[in-house]
Amino acid sequence: MSVDTDRPTNAARFAAALERADLVAAELRGTAAERDRANLPPREEVELLRAHDLLQVQEPVEYGGAGLSYAQTVQITRRIARGDTSIAHLVGYHYAQTRIATLFGTPEQADEQSRRNAEQKIFWGGVQNPRGGSAITLTRDGDGFRLNGRRSFASGASLGDQLSVTAAFEGELVFVSLPGGREGFKAVGDWDNIGQRLTDSGGVEFSDVRVERAEILGPDPLTGRTITPYQTLVTPHWQLAFVNFYVGTAEGAFAEALDWTRLHAAAWETSGVERASDDPYILQTVGEVRSEISAAALIADRAGEALQAALDTGPSITAEQRAEAAVAVYEAKYLSTKISLAAVSRLFEIQGARATTSAYGFDRHWRNLRTHTLHDPVAYKAREVGDWTLNRRAPEFSLYR
Amino acid sequence: MSVDTDRPTNAARFAAALERADLVAAELRGTAAERDRANLPPREEVELLRAHDLLQVQEPVEYGGAGLSYAQTVQITRRIARGDTSIAHLVGYHYAQTRIATLFGTPEQADEQSRRNAEQKIFWGGVQNPRGGSAITLTRDGDGFRLNGRRSFASGASLGDQLSVTAAFEGELVFVSLPGGREGFKAVGDWDNIGQRLTDSGGVEFSDVRVERAEILGPDPLTGRTITPYQTLVTPHWQLAFVNFYVGTAEGAFAEALDWTRLHAAAWETSGVERASDDPYILQTVGEVRSEISAAALIADRAGEALQAALDTGPSITAEQRAEAAVAVYEAKYLSTKISLAAVSRLFEIQGARATTSAYGFDRHWRNLRTHTLHDPVAYKAREVGDWTLNRRAPEFSLYR
Amino acid sequence: MSVDTDRPTNAARFAAALERADLVAAELRGTAAERDRANLPPREEVELLRAHDLLQVQEPVEYGGAGLSYAQTVQITRRIARGDTSIAHLVGYHYAQTRIATLFGTPEQADEQSRRNAEQKIFWGGVQNPRGGSAITLTRDGDGFRLNGRRSFASGASLGDQLSVTAAFEGELVFVSLPGGREGFKAVGDWDNIGQRLTDSGGVEFSDVRVERAEILGPDPLTGRTITPYQTLVTPHWQLAFVNFYVGTAEGAFAEALDWTRLHAAAWETSGVERASDDPYILQTVGEVRSEISAAALIADRAGEALQAALDTGPSITAEQRAEAAVAVYEAKYLSTKISLAAVSRLFEIQGARATTSAYGFDRHWRNLRTHTLHDPVAYKAREVGDWTLNRRAPEFSLYR
Amino acid sequence: MSVDTDRPTNAARFAAALERADLVAAELRGTAAERDRANLPPREEVELLRAHDLLQVQEPVEYGGAGLSYAQTVQITRRIARGDTSIAHLVGYHYAQTRIATLFGTPEQADEQSRRNAEQKIFWGGVQNPRGGSAITLTRDGDGFRLNGRRSFASGASLGDQLSVTAAFEGELVFVSLPGGREGFKAVGDWDNIGQRLTDSGGVEFSDVRVERAEILGPDPLTGRTITPYQTLVTPHWQLAFVNFYVGTAEGAFAEALDWTRLHAAAWETSGVERASDDPYILQTVGEVRSEISAAALIADRAGEALQAALDTGPSITAEQRAEAAVAVYEAKYLSTKISLAAVSRLFEIQGARATTSAYGFDRHWRNLRTHTLHDPVAYKAREVGDWTLNRRAPEFSLYR
Repeated sequence: MSVDTDRPTNAARFAAALERADLVAAELRGTAAERDRANLPPREEVELLRAHDLLQVQEPVEYGGAGLSYAQTVQITRRIARGDTSIAHLVGYHYAQTRIATLFGTPEQADEQSRRNAEQKIFWGGVQNPRGGSAITLTRDGDGFRLNGRRSFASGASLGDQLSVTAAFEGELVFVSLPGGREGFKAVGDWDNIGQRLTDSGGVEFSDVRVERAEILGPDPLTGRTITPYQTLVTPHWQLAFVNFYVGTAEGAFAEALDWTRLHAAAWETSGVERASDDPYILQTVGEVRSEISAAALIADRAGEALQAALDTGPSITAEQRAEAAVAVYEAKYLSTKISLAAVSRLFEIQGARATTSAYGFDRHWRNLRTHTLHDPVAYKAREVGDWTLNRRAPEFSLYR
Repeated sequence: MSVDTDRPTNAARFAAALERADLVAAELRGTAAERDRANLPPREEVELLRAHDLLQVQEPVEYGGAGLSYAQTVQITRRIARGDTSIAHLVGYHYAQTRIATLFGTPEQADEQSRRNAEQKIFWGGVQNPRGGSAITLTRDGDGFRLNGRRSFASGASLGDQLSVTAAFEGELVFVSLPGGREGFKAVGDWDNIGQRLTDSGGVEFSDVRVERAEILGPDPLTGRTITPYQTLVTPHWQLAFVNFYVGTAEGAFAEALDWTRLHAAAWETSGVERASDDPYILQTVGEVRSEISAAALIADRAGEALQAALDTGPSITAEQRAEAAVAVYEAKYLSTKISLAAVSRLFEIQGARATTSAYGFDRHWRNLRTHTLHDPVAYKAREVGDWTLNRRAPEFSLYR
Repeated sequence: MSVDTDRPTNAARFAAALERADLVAAELRGTAAERDRANLPPREEVELLRAHDLLQVQEPVEYGGAGLSYAQTVQITRRIARGDTSIAHLVGYHYAQTRIATLFGTPEQADEQSRRNAEQKIFWGGVQNPRGGSAITLTRDGDGFRLNGRRSFASGASLGDQLSVTAAFEGELVFVSLPGGREGFKAVGDWDNIGQRLTDSGGVEFSDVRVERAEILGPDPLTGRTITPYQTLVTPHWQLAFVNFYVGTAEGAFAEALDWTRLHAAAWETSGVERASDDPYILQTVGEVRSEISAAALIADRAGEALQAALDTGPSITAEQRAEAAVAVYEAKYLSTKISLAAVSRLFEIQGARATTSAYGFDRHWRNLRTHTLHDPVAYKAREVGDWTLNRRAPEFSLYR
Repeated sequence: MSVDTDRPTNAARFAAALERADLVAAELRGTAAERDRANLPPREEVELLRAHDLLQVQEPVEYGGAGLSYAQTVQITRRIARGDTSIAHLVGYHYAQTRIATLFGTPEQADEQSRRNAEQKIFWGGVQNPRGGSAITLTRDGDGFRLNGRRSFASGASLGDQLSVTAAFEGELVFVSLPGGREGFKAVGDWDNIGQRLTDSGGVEFSDVRVERAEILGPDPLTGRTITPYQTLVTPHWQLAFVNFYVGTAEGAFAEALDWTRLHAAAWETSGVERASDDPYILQTVGEVRSEISAAALIADRAGEALQAALDTGPSITAEQRAEAAVAVYEAKYLSTKISLAAVSRLFEIQGARATTSAYGFDRHWRNLRTHTLHDPVAYKAREVGDWTLNRRAPEFSLYR
């Protein structure tokens, strides 16, 4: 296939994926408030993603994927968030998890995983969150290994066909990929939070879970490796997903609020205007919120380009290039947090008091964003951006930066 | 009784009432999250207020009240809000409703009502909200009158022992006081909103409800009266109650967040400190939020003093004096809205991600404030303050300004 | 010339122009504080722009220009603003003025003007500001015309080799281009404002200034024409220039503040750190301000693309397409105003008290932005964005929207 | 003198002092812009304060003072700031300096100083600022002492009849009071900053300046003393003065802007209203700014009451009581900084573009506040408030907290 024909193909596949994402978002939006209240595991929602071929979009075309870049997938995440932030969270994490093999695995492991992801339309859960409870440890056991430990939060852990697990092995960090139902693994199912309710983010326990060598990413030996700048791009993957579901949530909530306002809002009695949509303060608020959300979307796009450029450069990237990409993502993290959270609260000022009726469930946007924007304190993201800007000190690698 | 002994008596009765309010608030706080979820009519909560002698505090001591001024009662409202914003809303509206007879009734009507309020510890609901649905009209029917119509929102309407109803009579505004269970009156019970869930604020319907002349406030004739500046103080009464339950909610949520932080918060992994309570950004946020809430409380107090001074001056107050009092309340309305709403969202940044667990129900503060701060658009309150300040144009009287 | 070779040529010419702009900005920055105090007409500054071939960049390559698009020129404006906001204002207005002939003139007039602009490196002043004083009127006088009237503000009016003048002719708007020194024209030289001091923006007077038919843009007859959506793009030209010099000012001030901080800032005595650049609050502020400025730059870029797309579509654009382009610019106007103004004040919190020494002149950034951001009230820009977003009501054309 | 007669006397003297302050403020306001540009030492301004008997108001009535409390004097400082922030700075520091003898001197020293302050209407300068340059040290020299060293900033140092100097003596902090013209003392006169230009705040040098034992505050021995909580109240004195001249500046600038707007502002051309004072956005801004400034004034008043209560309790106050007073002042510092700085920038949005004419000098308000609000980083004040609130850790004493 020539380069000239290939390019349109990617664009076309991307466009088609976005279209499918829009369909899924529309379907999710219609029931989002109700499902938020019901608080059931998002089993059907994951099936919806699978049915619309949205799980394997990053995998090569020859395996059945759409060959999209990571920066393209976060656009899908953003679209889904316009309909349901929880499901965008799940798919955003999923896209990030499936890149771990590329970063940390051997070429064979990565290729094998890609093939299976595409063929089986695998949904990935993740047990990365290093907060909450004792660490998960991997130990040798005969010719294999055993996983033990608990974590408090793990998105998609009960529904994941496959799990990406971060564990400590002889004092070092290793990434393990294993099927969801392995004996000794238990998803506690205790997630009941004010927001992101459909993210299946409860605690998990590993009790002597058997792990094969092939399920541990990377070549031998397992220890003594240096994590390269390229590999540390793993963290900005997640952070970029967050940014995009924050932005998508704000976009979706804004569209929803405008639709509602056109249909239901009443002019304020002392406003001197006939229709709420002529109220000078409402118009100003609409304009301000739109401008802010536009800016958040643009800085999210730029962050995606920066991360993708680093990924495209490949394993040779320098620590400085990694820092530039990470900082672009963290700028977007700071700003999208601030803007999206403020927006979903201000929207009520456009709509007025009747929009607080529970049936609409408009408060879920604030609850979703307030919940997830605490994942890691945004003040530290601003600080990391500042430290790089002022002192050229790169964010030290962790699963948070 | 001499003046010297009377003063301490008022102070002592006020102090005692605040103490009872603190007790009630503490009891309410313990179950607030749970009751918010259960969403039942606040019957027991009203009984709690009654049992602690908090309903009749404004009535004269000789009738069994505590002889508190209106500005003193809003301090009780604020205390109750520290435990439960919905119940503060109910008691705040109640205190305002019971002042209507003083403003619009004959001296005999006002005195009779005071006596009954004190003796029977009556809880008042109100059907004042002029928004939502067709107006309520009063018409003559033989030697009496009939009320007909519907309203969408009426706080305490189903639980009120007595109702204060605003109606149109021959094109003019009249205030009617009637017992809660009168035939033809129906509380629809359809209040299900994202916040202020326990305020019993559903719709009401009047179908040929019989009203006696004595239940209509004011002397004969019922029409052709001019509403005096003194009477138009009725609106700042409600607005001052709002201000105080906004402030109290922020105060209570802040105290709750600090307690939680001391017990549960974990230091951020990249913060370099051992305890969350040593984190520089958390400390800064605590300091900023405290300062803001202090300011909101102070401007609320000043508003209370301004309204009370106008009330104490009495029926002779000029339109300018009324405007000064109202504008002081509306300044407080603008600022307490802004500060309290921002505070209850920022508190999560002090606490961190774990505070989003549903069981704590910390999101109720934002939901409560977001819901009630839309009662009337705060932009218009700022505008009214500005118009008075720049142009000496007084807020034109309505039930909103 | 083939398309393939042409594209790099434009890119190369653009890159070269940006490089020249950076040189000019660097030179201007070195003396900006001093020149701000001296408050002399910016004669040498205009010569600097001319000497670096920055005045004719929009004109066709074959005439001696660089063939840049309007969206490209505003990037030059932004670069210049990093060194001196006043001079960026002058060059930004200049680029906009030179596009008026394209929009309103006959093809021959536009072409003739382009040729002369390029050959003579003409600097354009403008008398468009419709605020301030009586309008300027054009009347017939024999075979020619006469201009009469005054305006309070006219940027570059005394230094313009050529002036673009907006006048009323028989009740309609006409655009006149005439040489700067024409008899009867007087630049009052009374500009002495707190910011944008070097913009030569004083009042002007026209006393029976002779105008030839050829100097009035457009075909015969002069009246009875309908202004097309394409022509109304004239207003977003100016607004986009503003946006870019706001953004450039913030970028320049930020860079300047960081340099200064690295050299001069002292750690706060109770901070517990050795160097100001390790202070947690300073780092956070640096990160926040950087993120905000990044977003402002991105939304400015998007606005440039939107306006350019409309220009590239040409005279056939619909009212809706014009509205989309204008609204993109006004979103950027709202946000760049808010962000740049806040940034230049917050920068002092990075630097600390010593940065207030007059010799540095760091206050000029706030003074410059505060002055120009009042050109037209930004609340109305937010309102126009809101009105389009909510109601699909396009900004009605005026020289402000 | 009976209590009953004394109280009115203090109130009357206070009212009279405020009246004199208002007169001085009015006189200063008329020439403030002009004097800001001229940048001369504020000699006449100090004489104006002296002529209006504003320097000795804190001293006992029997010595010729007005017997005002410190909390009362900061109200004078606030009034003066409505006319001229620089002069309010000078008088605010003066009031604080004259309290040092009360805190650190022997009763005889304090009394002697009070008597001389009142009789001679002494104006105090201060050399306390521990930032900037090598410390000032006091050493023994025969039966006396010598001062040596430099400081970069010292308000009123060249004009002070008497100087309050903080110095290091054998590793400990001592306070020295000496006449302004003492041999070996030099005021460098190098203050030229963007704001607070008339505060005479240049550098000072001490070269073997002779000091007598009596000029060093406190009993023998000079070292080995523990600074008591009561004495550490010295720092909140200055901080409370700052708070009050921030608030006064905002109040004065607001009044000035409203006056200007009523006279000069023009309605915006697309606003649809005839007069600027009917513009919905202008009215809203006026209302918001007024409410904010009201809150700043109230929290400043409360801070004054808290500090005064601690002073009135006297030398027996506990560390906790000191912390409560200090924290009340620092809450006010945080909030008045934020509110006043934002207000003086927003006022231009009420007035519009013409208000940027240099002749009005309205930018001086922002320059004054921006300059002084950097005196010590306000983030640390928020942090100190937070640390006390969350952890009950009192601000550790320094000349900044």
